[in-house]
Amino acid sequence: MIKDLAAREDGPVRVAGWVEKVRDQKFVQFVVLRDESGAVQLVNGGVLREPDADNPRSEILLERTSAIAELTLGTFVTVTGELQHNERVKLGGVEIQIDRLEVVTSALPDNPVANDSGIDVRLDWRFLDLRRPEQNLVFRVQTTFEHALRQVWIDRDFIEIHTPKLMASASESRAELFEVDYFEGTAYLAQSPQFYKQMAQSAGFGGVFEIAPAFRADPSFTSRHATEFTSVDTEFSWIDSHEDVMALHEELIVAGLTAVKEQHGEAIQKLFGLEVEVPTRPFPRIPLAEAKQIVKDRGYEVPRADADMDPEGERRIAAYVDEELSHDFVFLTDYDASIRPFYHMRHEGDPALTKSYDLIYRGVEISTGAQREHRVDVLEAQAREKGLEPAELGFYLDFFRYGVPPHGGFGMGLGRVLMLLLKQSSIREVTYLFRGPTRLLP
Amino acid sequence: MIKDLAAREDGPVRVAGWVEKVRDQKFVQFVVLRDESGAVQLVNGGVLREPDADNPRSEILLERTSAIAELTLGTFVTVTGELQHNERVKLGGVEIQIDRLEVVTSALPDNPVANDSGIDVRLDWRFLDLRRPEQNLVFRVQTTFEHALRQVWIDRDFIEIHTPKLMASASESRAELFEVDYFEGTAYLAQSPQFYKQMAQSAGFGGVFEIAPAFRADPSFTSRHATEFTSVDTEFSWIDSHEDVMALHEELIVAGLTAVKEQHGEAIQKLFGLEVEVPTRPFPRIPLAEAKQIVKDRGYEVPRADADMDPEGERRIAAYVDEELSHDFVFLTDYDASIRPFYHMRHEGDPALTKSYDLIYRGVEISTGAQREHRVDVLEAQAREKGLEPAELGFYLDFFRYGVPPHGGFGMGLGRVLMLLLKQSSIREVTYLFRGPTRLLP
Repeated sequence: MIKDLAAREDGPVRVAGWVEKVRDQKFVQFVVLRDESGAVQLVNGGVLREPDADNPRSEILLERTSAIAELTLGTFVTVTGELQHNERVKLGGVEIQIDRLEVVTSALPDNPVANDSGIDVRLDWRFLDLRRPEQNLVFRVQTTFEHALRQVWIDRDFIEIHTPKLMASASESRAELFEVDYFEGTAYLAQSPQFYKQMAQSAGFGGVFEIAPAFRADPSFTSRHATEFTSVDTEFSWIDSHEDVMALHEELIVAGLTAVKEQHGEAIQKLFGLEVEVPTRPFPRIPLAEAKQIVKDRGYEVPRADADMDPEGERRIAAYVDEELSHDFVFLTDYDASIRPFYHMRHEGDPALTKSYDLIYRGVEISTGAQREHRVDVLEAQAREKGLEPAELGFYLDFFRYGVPPHGGFGMGLGRVLMLLLKQSSIREVTYLFRGPTRLLP
Repeated sequence: MIKDLAAREDGPVRVAGWVEKVRDQKFVQFVVLRDESGAVQLVNGGVLREPDADNPRSEILLERTSAIAELTLGTFVTVTGELQHNERVKLGGVEIQIDRLEVVTSALPDNPVANDSGIDVRLDWRFLDLRRPEQNLVFRVQTTFEHALRQVWIDRDFIEIHTPKLMASASESRAELFEVDYFEGTAYLAQSPQFYKQMAQSAGFGGVFEIAPAFRADPSFTSRHATEFTSVDTEFSWIDSHEDVMALHEELIVAGLTAVKEQHGEAIQKLFGLEVEVPTRPFPRIPLAEAKQIVKDRGYEVPRADADMDPEGERRIAAYVDEELSHDFVFLTDYDASIRPFYHMRHEGDPALTKSYDLIYRGVEISTGAQREHRVDVLEAQAREKGLEPAELGFYLDFFRYGVPPHGGFGMGLGRVLMLLLKQSSIREVTYLFRGPTRLLP
């Protein structure tokens, strides 16, 4: 591994990686070689352009010189040579004098991605785009973040479930549903694991979690939407209110960001120019009605007919929280029942309000959570009130007919968290392979 | 948590869970209450069937007695009472004298699942089926197994990826492909992350892993097949042969089973009557041709026209390995190129054989692994030889046109591992919600 070279003593080494840069000078050739751990400078001091009858190694040197001169960027090579520590080498303070260079697989000479390529070209050639160190870092951050979350769940004895993505009916809204030809009939792709993580509560699993794909046939082209995205989900029993859900949510976010800061804080500083900020607990909580009043008092009236917030309102309440409370996160709570799904529980004292929240991170909604309604008669009435046919929800309502403890949970978009953490302009930058209405390739 | 009661001192406690059993005797009532951690016996010593004017607590006792008498199985209740250690109580050596019992949500009186219900009835009512302690344990074992695997990958600095499940073309065979209506066009559900985990090698990610759903439009109804299953995938660069892949595969299996034995060995012994066996390394390796000769010498000729093994042959070679080498696992290696995908690398000396393997566990194939062909000209020739159109594979072949290091990996069915580990008759028993040609519900 290239990252381990600096700690080694001078002497023979073998490295392998892809060619990132070639400087072919008259008397010396330099190659920057990168593997998944870092980059190192290779030096060919024995440049020979013409046969030299006096030099017994003439043929070897000629061959090596022309091999290096012909290297195309991205070509994979293995190199043996002498490691030398040299303070003047900016790249890690070491270089390797090339003894033998072997081409494993050549890259085509014309790289379709340039430094100034737009996002669409870069997505067309995503595997080349992902070779950039900052892109590599995105997915190391993702790995660390997810592992830290899972460790919290494991420590709490939560069960990891894999809920089916093929369903017989819609889990959220009929409007954004992908249809699948399923033998003689039709199946639908799960928009969320909502029903099935609630099923685990009926099954007495206690706490469950899942990180898995979810699908929305959403034709929009915003920086925050994809037709397929990675959903971070959890659900657990025996809660008193959505406060318990928010408490776990905070704990997970803090654990994830702490691990990211510890393991990648320096690299993020170097490649993104950003300090990873671990939020303090508790995160601020503001009831939605109050939040709308705050942004109104600050000069922005949410232009919506319904009771909901809009993206601009979310940005503005986040700006307020940042200014007044110096916090990157805010829970907006107590959404109107009219704009929440039928399965959100309502307040005992005020059935117009739900025991639910959205989590806003740097001005963008990353998650919705709630206490769920577990009393089947109330649940059925709320479904009917929303114009849903209890018959179509039959299998879901059955879960509640044999006793379910009070429970709640949340779903969170992994891509949005990464986008906001690394201050990227779009989830396309932080998704391994983005899927949108006009993008199914590569 | 009920599992924590035994370690507590006698005194007031509060527990919550669902009613598993009620014994309503003349002078005393017993309830077995279960939560996700275990079960405990509740006792009502103050049974009162008729009003008793001499007893000041008459009304309370009457109410409690009738509430318990009316409890339906599966009803969720919270109970406050006095914890008492009592050696004669078989269930954990403790019981709770009920002070107050509150019904959270009632269950319907008729439980559609009986102890002798067939698998189809149990799958129809999967959430009730999952309340059985052995089913709960299956998913705790799954959680532990996966977490142990991920820890191995994390320790090796592998990157967790989420590859898209919506694709523009087939990743394996056109025959078993699900079609999705995708806006104005068609998408296909990924049969495996194969192409995309190889893309990570081209992107210089080094090692990657993913545990995610995969989809096969396979109409078969065997105990080992599902239309949607959880696939455990890994792929990594800079290998010398498929031996490196098998070495990592062994390490992962051993780590997973060690963790399962440590954390659930006792419970598995109690509920499944099984000793968890952690295999020794290295696992036996037998070239496929040799394996076929061995089973033939033992009286079974594989009835296939092609070079492949069949399920009966796999059972018999496993029986041989168990007898001769006392091992639950065996790698069958060096499959004929004719029965392997075009992207498997072939042996330098013998292009009729691939550098690939199947892993057999207790007689059933759980995984296929291989070194992949990374040289684009060879890869293209092998695709053409299989009758595939390089044009349709264009986006995949592009990955190899800009340099890819030698690499390999495997895909493994999580359900099969669990089925064989717990000696279950079908993956239906160990899948949270099974999906087959005629099953999309619940």
